[in-house]
Amino acid sequence: MTLVRQLVERLHAYVPGEQPRIAGLIKLNTNENPYPPAPQVLRAVKGAVDGRLRLYPNPTAQALRVKLARLHRCAPANLIVGNGSDELLALATRAFVEPGECVQYFVPSYSLYPVLSDIHGARRGPVPLCADFGIPSLKELRVGRRWQARAPLTFVTTPNAPSGRGYATDELRALCRAHRGVVVLDEAYADFATENAMALAGEFPHVLVSRTFSKAYSLCFQRVGYMVGHPALIAALDKVRDSYNVNGLGQIAALATLAALPFYRRNFRRIRETRDRLARQLSRLGFDVLPSEANFLLVRPPRFAAKVWLQRLRAKKILVRWFDQPAIADRLRFTVGTPREADALLRVARDILR
Amino acid sequence: MTLVRQLVERLHAYVPGEQPRIAGLIKLNTNENPYPPAPQVLRAVKGAVDGRLRLYPNPTAQALRVKLARLHRCAPANLIVGNGSDELLALATRAFVEPGECVQYFVPSYSLYPVLSDIHGARRGPVPLCADFGIPSLKELRVGRRWQARAPLTFVTTPNAPSGRGYATDELRALCRAHRGVVVLDEAYADFATENAMALAGEFPHVLVSRTFSKAYSLCFQRVGYMVGHPALIAALDKVRDSYNVNGLGQIAALATLAALPFYRRNFRRIRETRDRLARQLSRLGFDVLPSEANFLLVRPPRFAAKVWLQRLRAKKILVRWFDQPAIADRLRFTVGTPREADALLRVARDILR
Repeated sequence: MTLVRQLVERLHAYVPGEQPRIAGLIKLNTNENPYPPAPQVLRAVKGAVDGRLRLYPNPTAQALRVKLARLHRCAPANLIVGNGSDELLALATRAFVEPGECVQYFVPSYSLYPVLSDIHGARRGPVPLCADFGIPSLKELRVGRRWQARAPLTFVTTPNAPSGRGYATDELRALCRAHRGVVVLDEAYADFATENAMALAGEFPHVLVSRTFSKAYSLCFQRVGYMVGHPALIAALDKVRDSYNVNGLGQIAALATLAALPFYRRNFRRIRETRDRLARQLSRLGFDVLPSEANFLLVRPPRFAAKVWLQRLRAKKILVRWFDQPAIADRLRFTVGTPREADALLRVARDILR
Repeated sequence: MTLVRQLVERLHAYVPGEQPRIAGLIKLNTNENPYPPAPQVLRAVKGAVDGRLRLYPNPTAQALRVKLARLHRCAPANLIVGNGSDELLALATRAFVEPGECVQYFVPSYSLYPVLSDIHGARRGPVPLCADFGIPSLKELRVGRRWQARAPLTFVTTPNAPSGRGYATDELRALCRAHRGVVVLDEAYADFATENAMALAGEFPHVLVSRTFSKAYSLCFQRVGYMVGHPALIAALDKVRDSYNVNGLGQIAALATLAALPFYRRNFRRIRETRDRLARQLSRLGFDVLPSEANFLLVRPPRFAAKVWLQRLRAKKILVRWFDQPAIADRLRFTVGTPREADALLRVARDILR
């Protein structure tokens, strides 16, 4: 008797970006925020590290959902909190898609979507973006891109990763209107963009907006993400989640974060400034740099292949990300770090080109 | 177009025990440890609350798996760490059971199993325990208890919850030998028992042992559990988990816990002593108390119905657990707290009986 499902035997595990802890390494590979959490967040978490760790956390992250509801002008019933937004993306496949049905997503975008589709035994539904990573027009989508209005679940990364391309809310609204199945607008990087599409979670009963405290709010370590949408969709996600899915210190960290938003807005501004300067200076060195609305840049490096750059940068203790996907295999993704990290990257790039 | 799967629409969400934060309430309803984590654990967690929160945690809990492997005399490849053991129980349904197939478990036992079965679209396979909560003999199992040797997944809570009954390793070994599908020995309470069955994870390629830091190690808040078993089973679970499933401070807390085991062993001893004293004194008051190898007692209260007791205790600020299941609806489950909490429970019980 075989013990493991055939479906699972065939799976290839998702390969997350490396998380090495090497002294002196400049880590620009997984889009973490280069700045620490706000001092009051660290204080709040430290202050909660006591005998209370023995108790179960609030199973529905109630206090956090109340505050998030206030922030997004909706009700707690419009919100679910997850063990990172990754958990919520996985829950969406299980709540909305029958095994065998289609999980639709644009390519390139977040490389987790096809993995989640495979795990669920769903059918992958990749829809190619335009060459400039724009979303094709509805007419283009209908002709020749295998787009399905009735796919039970469609993921849209906005701003797009790994390109950094932002999308106008009006464009996303038109896209949502054309869909019949659930649409998840995955806004992991929205805080670095000029626009976000949170309004669409309130406008459409079939649209969920996914957010995370990981990147913009410097809390990757603590695994807190959330989705906003119609109570019927939220209730479905709620039924398939683990009952104590969000750890207690993560809930406390996220709550304290919401009380310190001006601190983070200053960070977003700094990161955008560093991003735009880095983009200009890389361009001058001959990199083809895509405009970015996120905290990273997707670049086509000059002279050597992207994979060669990856290795040479690594040899100089700068870790960046390369994706083994045809549409972007000639590119690298650089997370925007501090101004000093950007300077180090530029210095090493000049060395490599010398 | 319906947006939510019919399967999910039909689900009833698992109802976890209440987690109220009411001042003065004595919380004996969810089997939490009454003692705080070791001081060095609190120090380790506090010491990690800094800029590192911005970084992703180790995706495979590598350092923790290395230490756990040493503790259990196996290899890191025999181990997977989860967001609480609940996550791992859910992963087991997804890794080993085709939707429509059977998730088998004894009743009464952990009430999450049928919920996980339903979420996965599997078929519930409840197998009644004996009246004294013992595991029926193999002969009894084969005749008239709907037990299936070939069920792809069988959960065994050992020591049993909510009865507290312990099982001899030899008995569990015979049971495992008779099974053809994966068997999960759910040892959430093993640290309070005289025996544990960890050896069986090494003896059988189809047996997983599940453990948690929640109850015995006072870390419910932090969500860390693990499973031990054959690398092929572990690899299957690994493929279907979220990539950053275990939060970083949870990993740090669990690591520090493993360096402080003597502290916890003293707590186990204290809890067992309190448990045995409480059992004796409740018996004297007319409660029918089952022998327990866990940190709780399942009791049939005298004079009034269990639900009446539940309410009267609650009115006196003592929260205990009642299960709406035929086999145990006439009973209550009391978590073993501190000696003072046990005294308070006895005092209130005497008041109610007066």
